[in-house]
Amino acid sequence: MNWIETLGIIAACCTTFSFLPQAIKTIREKDTSGISATMYTIFTTGTILWLGYGILTVNFPIMFANAITSMLAATILFYKFRYR
Amino acid sequence: MNWIETLGIIAACCTTFSFLPQAIKTIREKDTSGISATMYTIFTTGTILWLGYGILTVNFPIMFANAITSMLAATILFYKFRYR
Repeated sequence: MNWIETLGIIAACCTTFSFLPQAIKTIREKDTSGISATMYTIFTTGTILWLGYGILTVNFPIMFANAITSMLAATILFYKFRYR
Repeated sequence: MNWIETLGIIAACCTTFSFLPQAIKTIREKDTSGISATMYTIFTTGTILWLGYGILTVNFPIMFANAITSMLAATILFYKFRYR
């Protein structure tokens, strides 16, 4: 694995796992006033479509990353509608 | 272009442009209380790394998507620190 591939993997980990601290904060504080329902509706849809794309093209990194991100984003979206 | 490629493009548009309604909401309302600074720090870093990866691998869709997302995410992060 060369350094450009390593850069891509670090980038993917950042954009995937960045939603974890947001999900933890939202679950703990139940403060969703600043969060955009439109963003999380579109974003969650997008990650589910990416997951479908990953499955159809048998691309494991895309499957793995979007399985995690879609669950985190869906959790944040659920809290947004539950505690609006 | 087959329908699987179309699915990938729709997915990419969703995850890229979903940050636009969040940025507009944050700029208008200046309410960032529910937003995680940790998330946007890691996410913005990730999209800048993805942009670098796109440039180094001459991948225009990755360049284009992450140029937009990094600007939107950086704007939200700026407001988070400015109006905490």
